[in-house]
Amino acid sequence: MARLVASDPAFQKDNRSRLGRKELFKNTLRKATYAWKRIIELRLTEEEAGRLRFFVDEPAFTDLHWGMFVPAIKGQGTEEQQQKWLPLAYKMQIIGCYAQTELGHGSNVQGLETTATFDPDKDEFVIHSPTLTSSKWWPGGLGKVSTHAVVYARLITNGEEHGVHGFIVQLRSLDDHMPLPGITIGDIGMKFGNGAYNTMDNGVLTFDHVRIPRNQMLMRVFQVTREGKCVQSNVPRQLIYGTMVFVRQTIVADASSALSRAVCIATRYSAVRRQFGSQDGVETQVIDYKTQQNRLFPLLASAYAFRFVGEWLKWLYTDVTQRLQANDFSTLPEAHACTAGLKSLTTTATADAIEECRKLCGGHGYLCASGLPELFAVYVPACTYEGDNVVLLLQVARFLVKTVSQLGSGKEPIGTTAYLGRVQDLMQCHCEVQTAEDWLKPSVMLEAFEARSARMCVARAQNLSKFANPEDGFAELSADLVEAAVAHCQLIVVSKFFDKLQQDIPGNGVKQQLQNLCYIYALNLLHKHLGDFLSTGCITPKQASLANDQLRSLYSQVRPNAIALVDAFNYTDHYLGSVLGRYDGNVYPKLYEEAWKDPLNDSVLPDGYNEYIRPMLKQQLHNARL
Amino acid sequence: MARLVASDPAFQKDNRSRLGRKELFKNTLRKATYAWKRIIELRLTEEEAGRLRFFVDEPAFTDLHWGMFVPAIKGQGTEEQQQKWLPLAYKMQIIGCYAQTELGHGSNVQGLETTATFDPDKDEFVIHSPTLTSSKWWPGGLGKVSTHAVVYARLITNGEEHGVHGFIVQLRSLDDHMPLPGITIGDIGMKFGNGAYNTMDNGVLTFDHVRIPRNQMLMRVFQVTREGKCVQSNVPRQLIYGTMVFVRQTIVADASSALSRAVCIATRYSAVRRQFGSQDGVETQVIDYKTQQNRLFPLLASAYAFRFVGEWLKWLYTDVTQRLQANDFSTLPEAHACTAGLKSLTTTATADAIEECRKLCGGHGYLCASGLPELFAVYVPACTYEGDNVVLLLQVARFLVKTVSQLGSGKEPIGTTAYLGRVQDLMQCHCEVQTAEDWLKPSVMLEAFEARSARMCVARAQNLSKFANPEDGFAELSADLVEAAVAHCQLIVVSKFFDKLQQDIPGNGVKQQLQNLCYIYALNLLHKHLGDFLSTGCITPKQASLANDQLRSLYSQVRPNAIALVDAFNYTDHYLGSVLGRYDGNVYPKLYEEAWKDPLNDSVLPDGYNEYIRPMLKQQLHNARL
Repeated sequence: MARLVASDPAFQKDNRSRLGRKELFKNTLRKATYAWKRIIELRLTEEEAGRLRFFVDEPAFTDLHWGMFVPAIKGQGTEEQQQKWLPLAYKMQIIGCYAQTELGHGSNVQGLETTATFDPDKDEFVIHSPTLTSSKWWPGGLGKVSTHAVVYARLITNGEEHGVHGFIVQLRSLDDHMPLPGITIGDIGMKFGNGAYNTMDNGVLTFDHVRIPRNQMLMRVFQVTREGKCVQSNVPRQLIYGTMVFVRQTIVADASSALSRAVCIATRYSAVRRQFGSQDGVETQVIDYKTQQNRLFPLLASAYAFRFVGEWLKWLYTDVTQRLQANDFSTLPEAHACTAGLKSLTTTATADAIEECRKLCGGHGYLCASGLPELFAVYVPACTYEGDNVVLLLQVARFLVKTVSQLGSGKEPIGTTAYLGRVQDLMQCHCEVQTAEDWLKPSVMLEAFEARSARMCVARAQNLSKFANPEDGFAELSADLVEAAVAHCQLIVVSKFFDKLQQDIPGNGVKQQLQNLCYIYALNLLHKHLGDFLSTGCITPKQASLANDQLRSLYSQVRPNAIALVDAFNYTDHYLGSVLGRYDGNVYPKLYEEAWKDPLNDSVLPDGYNEYIRPMLKQQLHNARL
Repeated sequence: MARLVASDPAFQKDNRSRLGRKELFKNTLRKATYAWKRIIELRLTEEEAGRLRFFVDEPAFTDLHWGMFVPAIKGQGTEEQQQKWLPLAYKMQIIGCYAQTELGHGSNVQGLETTATFDPDKDEFVIHSPTLTSSKWWPGGLGKVSTHAVVYARLITNGEEHGVHGFIVQLRSLDDHMPLPGITIGDIGMKFGNGAYNTMDNGVLTFDHVRIPRNQMLMRVFQVTREGKCVQSNVPRQLIYGTMVFVRQTIVADASSALSRAVCIATRYSAVRRQFGSQDGVETQVIDYKTQQNRLFPLLASAYAFRFVGEWLKWLYTDVTQRLQANDFSTLPEAHACTAGLKSLTTTATADAIEECRKLCGGHGYLCASGLPELFAVYVPACTYEGDNVVLLLQVARFLVKTVSQLGSGKEPIGTTAYLGRVQDLMQCHCEVQTAEDWLKPSVMLEAFEARSARMCVARAQNLSKFANPEDGFAELSADLVEAAVAHCQLIVVSKFFDKLQQDIPGNGVKQQLQNLCYIYALNLLHKHLGDFLSTGCITPKQASLANDQLRSLYSQVRPNAIALVDAFNYTDHYLGSVLGRYDGNVYPKLYEEAWKDPLNDSVLPDGYNEYIRPMLKQQLHNARL
């Protein structure tokens, strides 16, 4: 699929940073429509179509249509609703988006202000925006394209509020695409970066008493009857957590792929670029500098680590789904906390890592031609959407504190928190490391990470217990609690990496290289969070110093394989989108070539020479057109 | 000057992110020329003119003309050269840039490939680009505007190389602005972000045997005679280090101002924005959350810390200059290391902090209207230019190791390294903190930072001494050495903050607030680098925990004054350039208003509706124009 996209000139993307907003957006409409045409011509399955859109690598309204609108109807719509709306959506006879966040509310979904008031006389809901801050704000695909939306609003029947629910609302005429009466829609304007999310029409939407039939409320779990009575269906509400596990699992997989792109670019260019250290007249490849390795290789290790934890999350989602179908909700809270934490951990690390990779490319990383500025700008929203990363860590912390408080009550911690069942041992254990090589034992490393996390959780729980009101304590100590959550999530990633190494891994010497990366990932975290490990007494300063020695030695072992390890991601030059990261290493001639494509080079004299520069040079400012 | 710029509609900048490259660049040419006209009309001094350009807040060719071209001629030109060229430059009858970096060389200036070969027959230099990678690449103002450049090239006379020197080269005709024979120039293309540095014509330049008269080599410190002989003048070469101290001092001041802008935006918006925690129906201001305070207030403290260390650096530059004039070079190495380290520390921290402030604004921080995306994109090059931040820290580390190795030799460490003279005490001292309040003693805090830095320096020096070849050791341990350099630089910032608090500070209660910020700055660093403090035994885990308690208490004390502390930066809304950071707090109506200005909102139907969207919806893809 990657090759199919790469070989089709219609999917060219290297001009993206040079286009103005209108041109850029029109170009995206063309690509999305063309992609749809190809999907039909090639009779692709839904999954294949998704892969094709992935490699087209340009945010578009279709992402929301397929990724949010269709799943919302599938997950929250009744059988009849699905039968009515899904065929239209599958054929793109309607285009939908997901209108949840408002100008004044994002994280706090229960605080949304848009109202849906039931009018029993007409059997209709009246959708209304009572305040400026209730304007829907941010939904992708809304601004210029979508004909329909799933709109979230406070349900009001008989003057009473019944929480926030989803409603299918038609926004634009299917005849002439004009907004329907009572509906005001527009684009919310430019976002971070060149190209990036400016290909998307994130929109603003207000309703002035817009009426929809009662049967357009999504009623799978909660119904409003003809009389305006509210009825909870027997479908378990927990199902929505299953969806969250799914969405966040895809976000972790996306983190791994964004990070591996950035690392691939930085690693390849670090091998091409030479600077200083002239020996025999040839300068040193910058990848040979320890300072470069010390910043780059842990990111390479993270790219692999996130990939493996992402694969595991796929399994977890399957497991959760099967249990839900069997009405077994027992693993849901742990699975939910785990995916929330991993979403937060991997997206924060990836956003920071992309920018670090850009800096690792020196000055040229600042050029759009390096691909890194756009990769960063298009990636960073992942830290905010689908749960703000700090808010998510607080959820994880809440779960951990609860788990610790229930220890000994007979309720055994499960899954990724199972180690807390061994809390007695973990509070007392002593790290056995005496030489640098001792750090290369999985049991030693895992115990250090488990002890650190367990001790931090227990200490936080103890501090919380000093507060009369637990909620006051939680608010006051929230920054500390976040750190415990991070420690727990890092342990998950490390342990899933070790699990992966237990499996059969084909290819001569591949396992050894992955092992090196696993230890680099863990030892780098240990160094970065050394305060945690030392203050909890999990390791000694001497052992920390040995860990550093081992880390340096691992860098030397990874160095000869670094290029192979990024080539293994198997990205086409099209998908990578970076002159610095070209597979053939032919960086400088191509960078030179690329420069001339800038619009400023269309003419020798720049627009404005006669009006501004010439009068200045000629001391005739009175002639300047100012 | 800020008000003058803000009140003049010609300097409006809020449309910048929406303009295509050509329009954007032309707009900058207009503003720069208009600014020059105002400078003349108002008879501004050079310093006032610089302030005006600062508040216009748009990178332009004039920055390089005044900031690099003129100073290069002043610093490296002979008396005659200055008399010939400076009057032309002062009147902008010529426009100059600074052509040093090449496609293949940035950090390693001695590796530049452009050649300047003396031809004794014609008494000329032949400037030539022998390779593709020798193309000048990056110089601002070069691509489309400059008529002249100071070009750095390898001097060759009589077949011998004599290092890299500067040459004044005319690039474009003063009649019609066309490039002169043998000269190829263009723009290097789009850079990170909307607006940002895309207002600048960073350029590419190659020479095909371009001839210039001998007297256009800048000959203040090194001369080539009519016969092609090289003569070192009696002007001390150390003068160039004085210039470096000056340039880096301005970079630290710029870091403080960029950081304070970001913090001002994030702090004000954190007070406007409410989310969750509904009490009496009103949600909590996000600035009241400890997680928000824990991320935001250390950045507010850093903004003040960098301002004060910047003021001190100004004094240091004056001191160094006076000593140089008296032929006293004794303080130069220490001053050089100190400014290199502070440049690195403050720019890295500021770049990270701007992005953190963006995230602290939630989803809306991703809109260009927040001002933060452009602030980030325009700021990050500071981490790379004028010395890559990691390369600079290695220079600091080298100086520290040398200082430590000379202890006891009778050569007393001076200035910011004076504390290393007390290394014996610092290796043994014990932190006296027993209560959280004990951390509020300057002597306790300073000793902890001094002990940490001293012990890290000594440990690194000891590790280095185990290597037979010191250079091999330096390369192998470079990542560790960088950490010691960071510890040393953080100590400088902390101690200069304490020094500031020793001074008279007007305003009721102002000193108390600054004191709180000083402790927040130091305690936050202590927490972030806890591994350093614990592994060197400077503090105990218990003391670390007390430090955290104190930090939380300080957050509560800063909270009621947070808005006043950012209002004190006294930025106009024009300069701040952020809807989220508006002084009047009227965020949401203005955000809504701003959205409609996007080009996509020029028409109800988007460009491309008829060609792409309609055929898709109507199932008539054969009609689409693909």
